[in-house]
Amino acid sequence: MLKEGWLWGLGSGLLLLWLGAWLRPAEGGRVMVMPVEGSHWLSMKVLATELAQRGHDILLLVPETNILIQSSELFRTETFPVNLSKEELSTSLKGFQQGVFKRSPAMMDIVVQLERLLNFTESQVRGCESLLYNKPLMQKLKEENFEAVLTDPFLPCGPIIATALGIPAVYFLRGIPCGLDFSALQCPSPPSYVPRFQSGSTDKMTFVERIQNFVMSGVELVLCRIMYGSFDELAARYLDADVTYQDIISRGAIWLFRYDFTFEFPRPLMPNMVLIGGINCRKSALLSAEVEEFVMGSGEHGIVVFSLGSLVSSMPKEKAAIFFKAFSMIPQRVLWRYTGEIPDNVPENVKLMKWLPQNDLLGHPKARAFITHGGTHGIYEGICHGVPMVMIPLFGDQGDNVHRVATRGVGVILNIHDITAQTLVDALNAVINDSSYKQKMEKLSAIHNDRPMQPLDLAVYWTEFVMRHKGADHLRPAAHDLNWLQYHSLDVFGFLLFIVLIVTLVTFKCCALCWRRCCRKTQKRKED
Amino acid sequence: MLKEGWLWGLGSGLLLLWLGAWLRPAEGGRVMVMPVEGSHWLSMKVLATELAQRGHDILLLVPETNILIQSSELFRTETFPVNLSKEELSTSLKGFQQGVFKRSPAMMDIVVQLERLLNFTESQVRGCESLLYNKPLMQKLKEENFEAVLTDPFLPCGPIIATALGIPAVYFLRGIPCGLDFSALQCPSPPSYVPRFQSGSTDKMTFVERIQNFVMSGVELVLCRIMYGSFDELAARYLDADVTYQDIISRGAIWLFRYDFTFEFPRPLMPNMVLIGGINCRKSALLSAEVEEFVMGSGEHGIVVFSLGSLVSSMPKEKAAIFFKAFSMIPQRVLWRYTGEIPDNVPENVKLMKWLPQNDLLGHPKARAFITHGGTHGIYEGICHGVPMVMIPLFGDQGDNVHRVATRGVGVILNIHDITAQTLVDALNAVINDSSYKQKMEKLSAIHNDRPMQPLDLAVYWTEFVMRHKGADHLRPAAHDLNWLQYHSLDVFGFLLFIVLIVTLVTFKCCALCWRRCCRKTQKRKED
Repeated sequence: MLKEGWLWGLGSGLLLLWLGAWLRPAEGGRVMVMPVEGSHWLSMKVLATELAQRGHDILLLVPETNILIQSSELFRTETFPVNLSKEELSTSLKGFQQGVFKRSPAMMDIVVQLERLLNFTESQVRGCESLLYNKPLMQKLKEENFEAVLTDPFLPCGPIIATALGIPAVYFLRGIPCGLDFSALQCPSPPSYVPRFQSGSTDKMTFVERIQNFVMSGVELVLCRIMYGSFDELAARYLDADVTYQDIISRGAIWLFRYDFTFEFPRPLMPNMVLIGGINCRKSALLSAEVEEFVMGSGEHGIVVFSLGSLVSSMPKEKAAIFFKAFSMIPQRVLWRYTGEIPDNVPENVKLMKWLPQNDLLGHPKARAFITHGGTHGIYEGICHGVPMVMIPLFGDQGDNVHRVATRGVGVILNIHDITAQTLVDALNAVINDSSYKQKMEKLSAIHNDRPMQPLDLAVYWTEFVMRHKGADHLRPAAHDLNWLQYHSLDVFGFLLFIVLIVTLVTFKCCALCWRRCCRKTQKRKED
Repeated sequence: MLKEGWLWGLGSGLLLLWLGAWLRPAEGGRVMVMPVEGSHWLSMKVLATELAQRGHDILLLVPETNILIQSSELFRTETFPVNLSKEELSTSLKGFQQGVFKRSPAMMDIVVQLERLLNFTESQVRGCESLLYNKPLMQKLKEENFEAVLTDPFLPCGPIIATALGIPAVYFLRGIPCGLDFSALQCPSPPSYVPRFQSGSTDKMTFVERIQNFVMSGVELVLCRIMYGSFDELAARYLDADVTYQDIISRGAIWLFRYDFTFEFPRPLMPNMVLIGGINCRKSALLSAEVEEFVMGSGEHGIVVFSLGSLVSSMPKEKAAIFFKAFSMIPQRVLWRYTGEIPDNVPENVKLMKWLPQNDLLGHPKARAFITHGGTHGIYEGICHGVPMVMIPLFGDQGDNVHRVATRGVGVILNIHDITAQTLVDALNAVINDSSYKQKMEKLSAIHNDRPMQPLDLAVYWTEFVMRHKGADHLRPAAHDLNWLQYHSLDVFGFLLFIVLIVTLVTFKCCALCWRRCCRKTQKRKED
């Protein structure tokens, strides 16, 4: 009996061991994820979640006070204290939300935007500083022996930590203002057809636009100095080395760019750039019963989806009134992410929601138009699901974004300061009833969705590649070892010019000498 | 009974219809494939075969007289007459084979190579001409309504036909000498770190090498004129338009480049470049019983695989003697693709074969070294299977290729003119017994084989993409609409310089005027 029990125990043990081995997830690595706040996190979360689901041990490193970044049971979260209370953040956010609806004097727009960005980055640099000099936490991070850092180089903390700990970095970004990303990648960006940030140009420019873009590409260098000066200072001080922030990020192994040529203009790329534009779009899930009922009740007219992004969910009363009035004039039903003051006479065809299942609504067959602020997430979801757009840019890259979409003939731009109920109704009628918008959007959508590999799979693949091979050095161009003069072969050009000048001079002198001698001889003969 | 029969008939009919629909291959398109002769065809064949197997209707367009291109039951073949008999081709090939073993005077090497290339392209242009002006055949091709043309822009016929018939072109290539491919793609190639054809440099150059490369990048423009002048003339004449060959190929929808950064140096790319380097490598199949026995008989020493490529399978007797002698001095067994004169005393460890299952041999666990001429096919198979190489470049891009491989520390270069039995034995001993070669090669191989998608699948995908969307216009950069001055913003720079000069001049004049007036007044006052 004892013997049988022992055998039975051994058997069950072996079976359990075998089952355990069989059920165990694939061998995972350790990844530190350091996101940037706001909408930046929304798409990075998609990748972090997928990595966790594929068996990797993810540590999310976030400031104690934040807006959108939330921990998940899928990954561990490590918070670090920052000198910013929840109330201060909330006040600052409210100020920002109100600010975007205030008209700034003409020509001052870029200054206002720059100021906003500067305030944001400055506060973030301070937060980063308190993390970097938090010795116990940094020691803890070091001991984790991460195989990769996934971070957004829009802010300096992630790249600096990756450099300090000697961990290969995977960058996940939409872009860095002032083109610091392309400079750091050594990626050529000819100003003759690659439009600069806030230039308002497309890739096909007139002579005057090319002048503007050329000047802007020079101004960008100054802007970079202004905007990233504090990053440079922090990086050099913390790493105790003569480096700039550009030097730091230029060592990134793989750059996952939220970039796609159905939205952006074709331009040169570098081997370590992986394009994952549209990573946030997914097959639309079922709506809640209540929302589905509202949507289906729209009948043949369908619905309009309206959101101004993750940061702006309310607006001044008088501005909101314009929207309510316009919506009362259209036959479509409207789903609006709105947390502001609700007037008494909300039209019956409008449903206000605190949170909008934007992707699922845009993917619904009843979706007819999308009113958006022109953030890249919304735009990619719109393109992915083939819904024409009415775009009202508010800040940052949104002005450039909506310009790109409008150029493709799949959307109409409105100015938030000049908007009236009638212009909004006209714009909605145009994108809904003028079939050219829908046709062009369907074509664009088909191209966008026709990819050899889904952006999420691509992002996971290259992150795991960096973990497997401890970087991606074979994709790093030798251009990084050259200075500006060398890269542009100006030293070579100067040297060759010098040689040509010397040769010309010597030849000229020789000829002159010969000539003079000949002349003298002739003269002498004559005199003789 | 009648009713039952009717029912039975209907049932069987429906079943057959259902079965038919179920068994029918996926809806296929029509693709015209126009390859380039020689090794160029070997990898394009892989893609053409795969396309056919996936249900596409492939028409292979080949000259009546050819070397390697053979029809297959998988695709239809259309031949066109050329003014070259089988005998003439054979003689020319023999002359070429003997030529590569003749030492050309120092500094003349590039001239000899250029002459060879010129002769080849000229004969091909004549062949192409006879096809283009073959009206019945061209009419027949037009009526086929192809959805894509798959061709190698190394020779002009495919691109010109695609343009004439208005069919989107997919280019499949290793590259075009003189950099015409990158010029046509508007792809930046800074001469400071992108080594030019035959420059003998890597991506890390000294000042002198950068001068050479800079000069070479200028010489390339002249070379292009010399090499592709007849292509320009043919294209302009046949299409009756003011176009160059570069203009023609710049309209290619997708460029499938046999390029990979485990072999090439990292450099800028364009959005419509798809990298499929290593497309010819596949999992090694079983060897024939006889070959397998010979290979396994090598014991712990393993085998050496030796091939000088698809065009060179023999060599002068005295040259061959060096190889036979060297092989008698090593413990490995050697499998050699050799169709030349066989001496009496062939060493026992050497097996001569008319055709070598190169890929399968390199993928065999017994493979220790690969003696190759440095063609890209062999090199990619070597990297793919992780076998260190002894490289003996003969012509064309092989000099550049072997230089790249040697730079990675995974192979040794020998000169065919200076080779001795001892140098060959030393080289073989180095790559076989010095573990650093094998270690570096294994690392390189692991990176090469770690790709999100297999090159063949990628090539198929993008060919089908072009068929689905009638091109890939969204990937075409606006740089194509600019001339050289505009692209480099030289007109903008000139204009701004002009403005600055004018402003400076006017300011200076104004100051001078003010100064003079002030002086005059002071003088007048003094005089008064």
